[in-house]
Amino acid sequence: SARVFSALAAGGVNVIAIAQGSSELNISFVVEGGQTAEAARRVHAAFQLSKIGGGRSPEAPRTDVVLLGFGRVGRALADQLAARNGGSRVRVVAALDRSGYVFDPRGLSRQRLLRLAQGKDQGALLAALGGRKAGAAEALAFIASHAVSRPTLVDVTAEETADLLHLALGQGFDLVLANKKPLAGSGQSYQALLAAAAAAGRRIRYEATVGAGLPIIDTHLKLVESGDRVLRIDGCVSGTLGYVLSSVSEGKPFSGAVGEAVDKGYAEPDPREDLSGRDAARKGLILARLLGYAGSPPAAEDLVPPALRRVPLPDFLRRISSLDEEWRSRVARAAARGHVLRYVVSATSRGVRAHLAEVPADSPIGALRGTRNLVSFTTRRYRAEPLVITGPGAGAQVTAAGILNDIQYLAAT
Amino acid sequence: SARVFSALAAGGVNVIAIAQGSSELNISFVVEGGQTAEAARRVHAAFQLSKIGGGRSPEAPRTDVVLLGFGRVGRALADQLAARNGGSRVRVVAALDRSGYVFDPRGLSRQRLLRLAQGKDQGALLAALGGRKAGAAEALAFIASHAVSRPTLVDVTAEETADLLHLALGQGFDLVLANKKPLAGSGQSYQALLAAAAAAGRRIRYEATVGAGLPIIDTHLKLVESGDRVLRIDGCVSGTLGYVLSSVSEGKPFSGAVGEAVDKGYAEPDPREDLSGRDAARKGLILARLLGYAGSPPAAEDLVPPALRRVPLPDFLRRISSLDEEWRSRVARAAARGHVLRYVVSATSRGVRAHLAEVPADSPIGALRGTRNLVSFTTRRYRAEPLVITGPGAGAQVTAAGILNDIQYLAAT
Repeated sequence: SARVFSALAAGGVNVIAIAQGSSELNISFVVEGGQTAEAARRVHAAFQLSKIGGGRSPEAPRTDVVLLGFGRVGRALADQLAARNGGSRVRVVAALDRSGYVFDPRGLSRQRLLRLAQGKDQGALLAALGGRKAGAAEALAFIASHAVSRPTLVDVTAEETADLLHLALGQGFDLVLANKKPLAGSGQSYQALLAAAAAAGRRIRYEATVGAGLPIIDTHLKLVESGDRVLRIDGCVSGTLGYVLSSVSEGKPFSGAVGEAVDKGYAEPDPREDLSGRDAARKGLILARLLGYAGSPPAAEDLVPPALRRVPLPDFLRRISSLDEEWRSRVARAAARGHVLRYVVSATSRGVRAHLAEVPADSPIGALRGTRNLVSFTTRRYRAEPLVITGPGAGAQVTAAGILNDIQYLAAT
Repeated sequence: SARVFSALAAGGVNVIAIAQGSSELNISFVVEGGQTAEAARRVHAAFQLSKIGGGRSPEAPRTDVVLLGFGRVGRALADQLAARNGGSRVRVVAALDRSGYVFDPRGLSRQRLLRLAQGKDQGALLAALGGRKAGAAEALAFIASHAVSRPTLVDVTAEETADLLHLALGQGFDLVLANKKPLAGSGQSYQALLAAAAAAGRRIRYEATVGAGLPIIDTHLKLVESGDRVLRIDGCVSGTLGYVLSSVSEGKPFSGAVGEAVDKGYAEPDPREDLSGRDAARKGLILARLLGYAGSPPAAEDLVPPALRRVPLPDFLRRISSLDEEWRSRVARAAARGHVLRYVVSATSRGVRAHLAEVPADSPIGALRGTRNLVSFTTRRYRAEPLVITGPGAGAQVTAAGILNDIQYLAAT
């Protein structure tokens, strides 16, 4: 009976009267009319869990993950979860795309996820891969109604998913985002998302949006939880821009550095997406909003001159070497002062900048090489000397690890 | 009634039969004889909590902290907790030293803690400061028996406290350590402490033992939780040795660098304690044990030559300049190869080294200046490029913050 009443209590269901035989084989209780559905769901869930989880205590329920998007990161995450071999309380029960969804309340097997991934690689949508055709609202409602335990929606798309996230919060999902866009729109849309989560009693985590698996958002949270005040966060949060600028500072022509970044897969096929600084600025905005910044997204400094921003990609790639001489002299001017060029985002509660900066060559940012990210926290307690985290800030495996840490945090608390 | 049964369920108490009137003013239930005490304690605690916490849900119990030791760090912690102004579920209910204890189940006020701190500063023991005279076992048993919610013992001493920690685990305390010694003894004593915690169903956290408030142990935990495998941890974990060696590498005489470290309060009054590398080696050992190392403490490389290790402090300080010439030529030999000297600890599952190392001047460790710490994680996923955390690794405020994060982790999970 402990499990029954614990489940009811966790659901806020108040028991008015109870009758139980000393055989312990049956129990009856009375609840208010409005709480009947919740009570039934809670008790049902508690005992379904006990069946699947092998007699776990009701304090350790499973966390059921619904994947929104299923690209490289989603697959790495599904693999990392599957590799835990049942030792985990977390499993993927559904995947969702714009066509529909696949759902199995017992968890999607690794094989099933792999086949879905292969199908998606060939351009198919989930509705055509054995899934059910449905709009997102319908899909979420269906999944949520099927006794899903601690449902968590993981957004690994790079799309404008705010509407869908609002729906998910309303259906009782916690959210884990690797997708920056829902957090990097207008101040109003950001506040609306947080307010919707608060109203629904749900939580949002997004470690993987900045620095992939590096513990950036988590470190901020820990600083705040311990009563520190974070004054500013500065960083190099674009591996592509880091690679290009450290190559250029070492004497490589700009065009060659950009070409290498594309060849090595660091940059998008159209490298102007990275060179625009927009992605770095989004990360800076997410950090500034952690510090209380309530304003609009910043205008990022674009490393592509206006004349080359809208020409077709082949034209851009042909003409990019025309920029080499200007970059060479910029680098030389900085070097004469003992400086190097880096693309830096700086976030405070008052705003965020994303810009090309000259920094001392022997400073922590100046000493960065290649695609490594760096994030520096200046706080009331870490004021003279900041707390700095550096490491690779991209890659499917480490991004998935950042997401997994968020899921586990939600599962544990 | 939800609260009653939730409390019982959380205590693993099984209810055999229940009778409740529809007035909801009284409720009776039957439990097994052996569970009577636990049931009474649980129900009592649940309603006492509701009185103190103002109707909080039974899922958010208070965490009651007992401070073992009350020096600079203990006071900073008490201040940080008090500064949270009741917004926190954590409070200090007792302080303990070798003379006895002070205890107030409603929480010790900031004023009371301040007066205790002043008394301790003047050399008094707690038994003489309005406390109760008692041995540690008696004190812990008394405190544990007085309806303490989620009791947590925080060890901020620098003493051999293993016996007392075992007692506390037996009395139901979770442990938070800033004290390295109980974790840095023989492999057997370390394993015994972990085994005692497991047997008692209690937890041990010790973020502040390495890097003070820097998120070192927590980052390791997150890497492991996400399924990564940490292959090695390298670091500069002594602010004093970092200060001395970066000064020496910049051309300062060894004796002058050591003198400055003492004057600035970085080093102990007898700087040989720091120069011995013993404290750095303890931190390295704690990191190696995280990686599965089961062996003995390492022999640290001592920067003080044998002839000066046992002479009285004034003799040592007079003769230290005799070492300057040897250090000057060491630094020059390293510089000729583009290297600088640093005191590095390296931890793997197979062992731990604590030694003076030559590292490239433009490497992350070579670029460290002053007292900053650096800890570098090389893992299966962060293999070519490690995950690196740097920042100040000492100081009462940041050490207390590391402890507070541990307490909050225990309170939240």
